[in-house]
Formats: sequence, structure tokens, C-alpha cells
Amino acid sequence: QENIILISKSMKNDFIVPEWQSFKQEIDKIYRNCRNNTNGDVASYIPQLARYSPDFWGVSVCTVDGQRYSNGDTSVPFSLQSCSKPLTYCMVQSTDEYIERVHKYVGHEPSGRSFNEISLDYQNKPHNPMINSGAIIVSSLLKPELSLPDRFDWTTKMMSKMTGGEHLSFNNAVFLSERETADRNFALAYYMRENKCFPEGTKLHEVLDFYFQLCSIEVTCESASVIAATLANGGICPMTGEKVFNSAAVRNTLSLMHSCGMYDYSGEFAFRVGLPAKSGVSGTVLLVVPNVMGICLWSPPLDKWGNSCRGIQFCQELVNVYNFHNYDNLKHTEKKMDP
Amino acid sequence: QENIILISKSMKNDFIVPEWQSFKQEIDKIYRNCRNNTNGDVASYIPQLARYSPDFWGVSVCTVDGQRYSNGDTSVPFSLQSCSKPLTYCMVQSTDEYIERVHKYVGHEPSGRSFNEISLDYQNKPHNPMINSGAIIVSSLLKPELSLPDRFDWTTKMMSKMTGGEHLSFNNAVFLSERETADRNFALAYYMRENKCFPEGTKLHEVLDFYFQLCSIEVTCESASVIAATLANGGICPMTGEKVFNSAAVRNTLSLMHSCGMYDYSGEFAFRVGLPAKSGVSGTVLLVVPNVMGICLWSPPLDKWGNSCRGIQFCQELVNVYNFHNYDNLKHTEKKMDP
Amino acid sequence: QENIILISKSMKNDFIVPEWQSFKQEIDKIYRNCRNNTNGDVASYIPQLARYSPDFWGVSVCTVDGQRYSNGDTSVPFSLQSCSKPLTYCMVQSTDEYIERVHKYVGHEPSGRSFNEISLDYQNKPHNPMINSGAIIVSSLLKPELSLPDRFDWTTKMMSKMTGGEHLSFNNAVFLSERETADRNFALAYYMRENKCFPEGTKLHEVLDFYFQLCSIEVTCESASVIAATLANGGICPMTGEKVFNSAAVRNTLSLMHSCGMYDYSGEFAFRVGLPAKSGVSGTVLLVVPNVMGICLWSPPLDKWGNSCRGIQFCQELVNVYNFHNYDNLKHTEKKMDP
Amino acid sequence: QENIILISKSMKNDFIVPEWQSFKQEIDKIYRNCRNNTNGDVASYIPQLARYSPDFWGVSVCTVDGQRYSNGDTSVPFSLQSCSKPLTYCMVQSTDEYIERVHKYVGHEPSGRSFNEISLDYQNKPHNPMINSGAIIVSSLLKPELSLPDRFDWTTKMMSKMTGGEHLSFNNAVFLSERETADRNFALAYYMRENKCFPEGTKLHEVLDFYFQLCSIEVTCESASVIAATLANGGICPMTGEKVFNSAAVRNTLSLMHSCGMYDYSGEFAFRVGLPAKSGVSGTVLLVVPNVMGICLWSPPLDKWGNSCRGIQFCQELVNVYNFHNYDNLKHTEKKMDP
Repeated sequence: QENIILISKSMKNDFIVPEWQSFKQEIDKIYRNCRNNTNGDVASYIPQLARYSPDFWGVSVCTVDGQRYSNGDTSVPFSLQSCSKPLTYCMVQSTDEYIERVHKYVGHEPSGRSFNEISLDYQNKPHNPMINSGAIIVSSLLKPELSLPDRFDWTTKMMSKMTGGEHLSFNNAVFLSERETADRNFALAYYMRENKCFPEGTKLHEVLDFYFQLCSIEVTCESASVIAATLANGGICPMTGEKVFNSAAVRNTLSLMHSCGMYDYSGEFAFRVGLPAKSGVSGTVLLVVPNVMGICLWSPPLDKWGNSCRGIQFCQELVNVYNFHNYDNLKHTEKKMDP
Repeated sequence: QENIILISKSMKNDFIVPEWQSFKQEIDKIYRNCRNNTNGDVASYIPQLARYSPDFWGVSVCTVDGQRYSNGDTSVPFSLQSCSKPLTYCMVQSTDEYIERVHKYVGHEPSGRSFNEISLDYQNKPHNPMINSGAIIVSSLLKPELSLPDRFDWTTKMMSKMTGGEHLSFNNAVFLSERETADRNFALAYYMRENKCFPEGTKLHEVLDFYFQLCSIEVTCESASVIAATLANGGICPMTGEKVFNSAAVRNTLSLMHSCGMYDYSGEFAFRVGLPAKSGVSGTVLLVVPNVMGICLWSPPLDKWGNSCRGIQFCQELVNVYNFHNYDNLKHTEKKMDP
Repeated sequence: QENIILISKSMKNDFIVPEWQSFKQEIDKIYRNCRNNTNGDVASYIPQLARYSPDFWGVSVCTVDGQRYSNGDTSVPFSLQSCSKPLTYCMVQSTDEYIERVHKYVGHEPSGRSFNEISLDYQNKPHNPMINSGAIIVSSLLKPELSLPDRFDWTTKMMSKMTGGEHLSFNNAVFLSERETADRNFALAYYMRENKCFPEGTKLHEVLDFYFQLCSIEVTCESASVIAATLANGGICPMTGEKVFNSAAVRNTLSLMHSCGMYDYSGEFAFRVGLPAKSGVSGTVLLVVPNVMGICLWSPPLDKWGNSCRGIQFCQELVNVYNFHNYDNLKHTEKKMDP
Repeated sequence: QENIILISKSMKNDFIVPEWQSFKQEIDKIYRNCRNNTNGDVASYIPQLARYSPDFWGVSVCTVDGQRYSNGDTSVPFSLQSCSKPLTYCMVQSTDEYIERVHKYVGHEPSGRSFNEISLDYQNKPHNPMINSGAIIVSSLLKPELSLPDRFDWTTKMMSKMTGGEHLSFNNAVFLSERETADRNFALAYYMRENKCFPEGTKLHEVLDFYFQLCSIEVTCESASVIAATLANGGICPMTGEKVFNSAAVRNTLSLMHSCGMYDYSGEFAFRVGLPAKSGVSGTVLLVVPNVMGICLWSPPLDKWGNSCRGIQFCQELVNVYNFHNYDNLKHTEKKMDP
């Protein structure tokens, strides 16, 4: 039935990006510009990340109408790392029990501090779910009544709905490495337990294992662009039409990606790019253009903030061309292109 | 000519808020709800603010099409205080010389710290133009080639364009009091001069005087709602049709109001209300609904963050009813009202 | 042979405190004054500490010539807690290998921060061995080549030499409780491991166990006064004549007790009392009057800094009467008593 | 009469350093060792300091019995800078009114922070009188009932008593430069006034002028060694026999020099050297060996903490040879020399 809608839209050329060919050419151009950017260093704190070639560079786009674009290394799997944070936050908000309760445990403020800093806000909560401490708390709220295997199962099923069934796998070597080099995360977790940040009954080591596992889930640029598109589309996967999240959960997730998604560059990113996004140390950027499209950018070399160098450049060039910035669509604006 | 457009729109009922009567009734209801809120304390650090009755409560709305609404104490003058910060920032961005240069002197990150904290960002700049240190820097960039009287003249003329010629005055008693109790601002200014934050040639005491004067400019709810509407309308005053700012300046201003406008409540405000706004210790909130309307809320009692208690409640109730939140207009959203 | 010396000194009345009777009367008076002090609360974070009566109050003195005084609850065992810190530091300095190396791993600065704050100095080392992080590091340096049982054995043997064979025991219930409520110490340890603070090969959980065990060693006021006297006597136990430490190790230990021994009250204590001392949450104060005597004070109720209320009062009254303050013996001083 | 005592002591060879010749030879050796140290940079924030040759190197000793030693550039005048801090603190404690009250306005804790950091302790007081904020407060307590000229007069008279009438002058160019580059001190002062740190009636700009003037008083190595000797001698100038301070004031001053005198190196200095000292950016170190001697070291090149490189080396070598460390005189110590 969904297919009928797609075909019908196609017939009427009623897609969200009507001029798809010229849009693709524009994205091709930006893709090539960014390929020349050889700044940054591949994350090296675990060997599984260090081994990725700095040359990898992939861009995938999926619009809310299911229009697709891919260029470069878009079918190579990589781990989600911090890009799992907005996804698990959105899931927690979609469960009946925690939609209201989650913010009893975690704040919604940019911290003004490093993503792994050992500090809590004035209410003794992690500042927000996009930093490590907050994401660990969110992990502890994900179906806590289930066993660990069932929690992992449930979470990957939710993610699979977001990818519309496209590539999703688990990299056990990454998980084992993450756990082995996780001194800071253990320090954060013990510090939070001391400050009674966790819901009662939380098993600390189990939650950390779960958190590391979530970071070790693998996607490709292609499948991740569908994830971003599901967020752009208010929680409904554009490839399957399945409603994965309610729109309130997506609204909250996009709000926090907007203000806190790009590590310590978040404020400047919100100012310059003005779109919700989340980056991860694997070199990934999930970028959401609400009501229009989801984009996944992947290139391992990172800048000093931990964001993909090519990914940041792509975002910047994209909003220079298109009117995607949050405050670009003001009336009377000197027009950028509307794709 | 502008009037002809207004009349023509009126004929065709083509206004941005077509159902103006029912919208006004809804706002009336919220106005009354907030009047019952007797929380908070009137700012008392200068007698001129302390003397305002905690009962004052005014709401004025001005749409981008010039539709107007006012309820309560909307023609009582009060000083802009921190609400002057986004206005001067927008002015600096509108001057040829500084549109690019201003961010060499001031950042665009939420600071994660108190609005008057003595700290600078990692580049030794104030974190953003919405906190005291950043606004002092912005003051130093406003037409520095002019004499102090001419700078003040130029600034108030710009403000007058934003109000469309409606109420704008200067409260000299407030200025004198501000200057007398300004130990922290002097400390900030000396600390910044030590860190070479000011453009060369800046006269510190002159700049501080100028800054205190800008905080002491008075508006009414009515005239301030036109200011907010000018920002909502991409820099063109909806009452006069005059282009006051270019849209890039307005975009940047709204971005920073969105992330940093409500003191230490900014992150939570962005999350819950999702609109650009700026508050001041006089009990004012300037609220911008881009492309739709500007709103001025005024009620002196402040919460612990320095935001007007009734003002915050009003914003919250407004977005509960209308789809004004930045991420409310997602496709497939469970519908709130669209006015 | 040592006994012959003592007897001979006694014959000649050549003891360090010649007027022992009048000294004892003076101490009796101070003891009674402090008994009236009912301020403070008994530590309650583990039940084993919480159960101690707030009425316990003991004072024991042991001079460098072996003169003894005890009043009150001086034979009730209590755990050393933080009072173990200077002892293990002194031991590490007495081992051949680490006398020089220990300060590669730990600083010698007062931290200006709380005793359990998660922070390191500018060289990424714990600030000093008297705070938790520093003491954990010191534990990792104590005979690391031995097995855990042998390390514990060696350490208690050293402590036994300091007490001259007087009371020393191990409270396993305290150890188990400490380990169970040690979230902050785990956080500190993981944070330090992340920052490569530990010597290579350190097993984190083993070191923490060892550290908690050292805190759980029990003494009495009487036996602990001999420990303090061993430090006052340059490392030679006054009761047995055995040389336990070299004088350089004792010098360094006293220096750090002087500047960092009394939690966040250390600076004020150094100013007002001017003597090396170390307090613990069991309500203990080890006080050293170099070349004269060691004193152990024990009273469970603690002030807001974690120091025994009666213990602090005793120290203050003692230096009001006697010229024990580090800078009391200036020539031309308006004389206090010289015991 | 004092001379008669000196002559009589000399006759009996009853001086505090009986073997003066060999002591002088030892100091000569250390002097030469330190001359080879070419580390560090001359302070350059004002031209008056920047102009001093890095080759200047002077050492003067004055014992409590008036024995004198000088080597190198010991009659070149230089400004006291921060070395004025312990002197004014001692003066305030010697005035009837403030001996008790001074610590209502300033603490006695090492701050664990930089000497000019904008922070106050938990009671909203500067941490101690040896950092800028604390010294500014102390300046405000120095004879506040007098006019500024009379306050300056009184203070220099007190200093003159400490030098026994030897060289003391005022460098007006230094004063004017200090005042011109004093942004941080102005920031500190305004911040403190905001926090109500000053006694009522304090005129901020007057106090800052006074403080800069005190920093601009000049001494020579020779005259400053007498100042240090006056402190070593419990407040009585060894050259004139005049009682300048009561011993309680000197005790407190030495306590604070011991814990806070050497900027951020204070903790390590107390650990390694174990003597009260104060350094200044002119390259000066005032070193006090209580009951024995005062020493002034002067060499402009500074290390990263702001302490004279040669001065620090001298102190270290001195305590390696002599038993001057605070905890060196323990019984049973492996002997260092006792001069």
C-alpha cells in the first residue's frame, strides 16, 4: 500500500524534492569538495577504530518520501558509537513508562563542558542524554524489567525498524575493546551511583555492558540515512511506513540533537548549520532536515572536538546552498535554494 | 502602499492568523491563568526596579501581518535590561564593518555557566552575546567611530525603527543606579581588558556607560511586541514595512536567542518551548514565533534564574496549545492547533 | 639496654617533660573541658562507624622518652580510616625502591579541594598522599612484588613496630562495609587508571581491596599514641627503641601531615595549631609534637570537615597553653609554658 | 647598649652561627653554583621590571645576632612587589584594632589556585593574605582612619624599622606602570566589592593605589635581609634591637609564608625546603630561618610559577647542607650540618 503511495507521488512528481536530479548533482559537488579535506585523525583509542582507512568517505540521503542517494563508501559497516545516544533516548521516550520519567534522571541542558566530564548539573543529574553520563543513565531505563539479552534484542529490533530492515549488525570485537578501555565510563558510572543518579535496582556493570553493546552496533551509511529519515519524518520510517516513534519523542530527540549533538562544537554547529545532528567517534554524522530528509555522513578522520572533519564541512556547505538552517526560512530572506 | 497590502490581505482574510478572534480568546485564557501565578520576587538590586508592583502583568502580540493584541499593563514603560542584548547584537551584524568581525570578539556557545560568571571560552572570548560579558563586547563594536552621544543616538534610532515608531524612552535614574551597582560588570570588563577581548582603542569606562545606557532604554509591552515581530518578520518592521535588518543578522540573532536567551534556563526553555526568546530582570520576555508573530510578556516577579515567572508560564501554555515549538511541525505529528 | 637508658633518665629526671605531674594535671583539665563539647555527628555512611557512642572520648600521650598518659576510653579499638594514610606513605618512603619514586606518582601540594574530589594536579597526579586518590596510589606502591596476603602481612608488621607491639587488629566487618559503599573511591580509581596514574601492572580491584583493608585496621588510643610518638621520635619507637623508619621518611611524612592532614581544615589547623596531625572519620586525631611526644585523640562526633570536634578543641587548647606551635619558639616570644 | 651585647657575644664567640667563616665559605659555594643557572625569564609586564639584567644575582644574610654576609649585586635597589604582602600583613596584626579582626576579612588557607585567580573561599573571603586579593584587603585595613599620604608614611616608617634604617625608597615609575597594567587587580577588587569583602567605607580606587604603592617600595638585598632577620628574630630588628612587631604577629606571618608564600610552588617548597619564605616578580625571595637568620635572594629571571630560578635553587641547596628544614631537627636524624 505504501508502495502505491510512492508510485502515485512519483507519477505526479509530488516528492518533497521535486528536482531530484539537480539536487543530486549539487550533493555530488559537495561530496567531491569534502573529499579533498584531509584534516583530522582517525580515533585510535581502540584498535578496531584505528584500523579504518582515513580515505573512507560516504554520503547517503533518504528523503521523507523515500528518495535515495548514495555516494562513496556507503555500504561499509561501522559502529554507531555516540550516534546510538539519540536513538536510545528516543526509544526510552517511546515506552509507556518512561516518556515522562526519563527527565527525572537526566537533564536537557548543554553542559558547557566536555562530553565525558565527571560532573552533574545542579540537581545532581547528568546534563543531557547526548553525553556519556546521560546516555549510560538512558541505557539503564531501556526496558529494565527484561533480562539483558532481551533488552538487547528489543533495542536492536527498534533500531531495525528505524533502518527499515536495512543493514544492522553487532561488532563483538568493538564491544570487547570498548569495555576494556572504558576507565572513564566506569568512573562516571561509579560517580553517578554515589550520587544516586540511577533508578533503584540498577546493576552497574550490567548497564555498562549494555551501554558498550549499544555503541558497538554497526550500520552502513545507507541504513543510517534511513534512521535519520525516520527522525526527519516524525517517527515514521519512510521506506516501510511503519510508525516507530510517537512525534513527541522525536520532537524531544531533535531538540536535544540540535543543542547538544556535536560534542563541544554543538553551540557553534547550531549557530552555523542550525540542524539537529549527532556525531560519533567512528566518524559518523547523522543529520536531520525535519520534514525533508535524513543524511548519514561517514569519514573516520576527526577534528579536535571528535567530529568528522569531512562531515562538518559537508553540513556547512549544504546549508550554504540550501535553506535548511533552522532560521533560514524567514520571510523576506535573501533566498537560498529550496530543493 | 504597505497599508494597501494590509487592507487587501484583510479583504481576502489572508492574514497569517486567519482566525484572529478565536486566537485572541485563547490568549485571553492563558493571560488569566498566568495572572494567578504569584511566584517569584521583583528584582531589588536597584530601587528603580524594586519599586515596580508585582501585580503588573501585560501581554502584547504583533503578527508579521500587523495584527495586534494587548491585555493588561501593556502601556506602562519598563527598561529593556538584558532584552537589549539581542537587539544590539543584531545591529552590530547589520553594520557593514562588523557582520563578519563580531564573532572574532565573541563566541556562539551556551556557556553552561551563570550569565555574569567571570569566565571566557577556550579562545579567550566571552561565550556568547546574550551574557553580560558578551553584550559589553558587542556594545564596544556598535559604531565605535562615532562619539558616545552619536552612538547612543544611532542605536536608539535603530530601536525606534524596530518599534515602528512606538514607545521608546530613556530612564536616566535607572542608568545612574545601574552604574552605581555595577561591581560585577566592572570586574568583567577589567578581566576582559586583561585578556585583550576588546577591539583596539576601546575606552573601558565609556563602553560600560554605553552598555548601562542601553539597558536603561524603556519600552512598553506594546512597542516591544513590534520589536519581536520585526525579528519574526526577518528584519522588516510589520507596522511600517521598513527593512531594519538583513535576514542573515536576524537568523544569527534568533539562533542565539534560541540557545542562550533565557539565562541558565535556556537549555530547558529550548527543549520545552522551542522558540527564540530573551528575558530581562525588569520581568520582560521577548518571544519570537518566526514568520508568525512577536510577543512581549511583562511581569516583574522573577524566578531563581531571573526569568519572569508569569512569562515562563505563558510561553509554556502557548506551545501546549499551538504548534509553535521548533520541532512541532513534523509531519505526522499528533496535531496541536495551528492558529 | 633501652630500659637501662629509661631508668637512668628517670634517675636523673632527664626526661623530655621533666614536670610530668603538672603536665598531666594540665592535660586532665583540657580533657575535661573538651568532654563538655557535644558538637558534631558520628559518621554514618557505614553501620560499623554509626554504632559508636558519641560519648567515647579518649586521650593518650606517649613522649619520646616513653612517658605515658591516658584518660577516658583509651583501650576501646577503633579503625584507623584516614589515619592509615601517613603511615603507609611513611612505609613506602622507607622501602629502598620507592623512597625517590613515590613522588613520581603523587604530588605534595594541598589540593585546595575536598579530600575525595575527582581531580588531579597539573601533572596528572593526585595532589598529595593524604587525600583518598593519593592514598590509593600509595597503596599500589607498597611492596607490589608480593602477593596481596603478604603485602597485608608486611604492612601490619610495620604498623606493629610503630605501636611497639601494643594493640593492633583487623575489623573485617568494617572492611566489607567500606568496600560496599566505596562508589567514590572506585570512581577515583578508574579516573586515575584512565589518566595512567598507577605504576604499570597495578591490578585496580586488588589495590582498592588493599586500601580498604588498611583503613580497617584497628588500634586503641594507647597504641596509636605510640605510633604518633614513633613519628615524633624521628622513626624510632620510644617503647622498644626499634628503628622503624629513616628520618627522611619521617620528615616528609610530618611535612605533609602539617600541610594536608586535616581535610579542608588543614590550612587553618596549620595556622592555629601549627603541628603535624592526621584525622580520620572514626573520630581519631594523630597529633605529633616533634621531638617531644605523640598524642592520640579519639571521639567519634565529627565537624563539617570530618574532623573530631573534641579532637580539634583539644589541639587548640594544648597550643594555647604550651609552646608547641611550629612558630611558637621564636626568640623574644611572650612565653607560653614549656612542659 | 645593644652594641655592648653584640661586642660581648663576639668576645665569647657566643653567636648563633659560631663558625661564621666556614658558614660563609659554604654560602659562597652555593652562590657560585646558582650563578650558573641561566633558566627563566625576567618579568616583562611592565618596562621597569623588564629592563633589569638577567645577570643580577645577589645574596645577603643577616643573623639574629647581627652577623652579616653579602655576595653579588646586593646594593642594587629593586621593588618589593609581592614581598610586601607578608610585611603589611604583619603590620596589620600589630595594630591594636586589627590583630583579631583581620581574619574576619581574609582566610588562612592555601587556595590551591593561581595567585591572581578570581575566586573567594567558602566564606566569601580571599583565601589568604599572600595572594593578590588577600593583600588588597590587607591594604584596606592598614590604618584606614588616616589619609592616604599618612597611611603611606606610617607603612614606610614601619618598614624602615624592619630594615634597621637601611636602604628603603619608592619607585614612582614602577607605581605608575603597575597601576596602568592592573586590569586583573581592578577585576579582583570590583569582584570583592560586589561580594562585600571590604570593610565598610573602603574607597576602592584609593586602596588599589595604596596597594600598588606598597608593591613599588624598593629595597636592596642587604636591607631586605635585615627585614627577613627581623621576622626570624621574633619581631625585634637584630641591627637596632627595636621591637617592631609582637611575636604573635610574626608567628602568624611565618605560618602563612610557610604554607602560601611561593605562589603555586608553595606546597612543594614547604615539602622540600620547609622554611617560611615569600617571593616577588622582581626576582626576590625573602627566606626566614626562625631564630637563626634572614636571607634575601635576588635574581630577576623567573620560573613558570613566578619564583626566581636562582632563588629556588639556593634555598634547595641550603637545606641540603644545613639542618634548616622545619622537620630536619628530629632526634636521631642522620645529621646534616648545624651551622
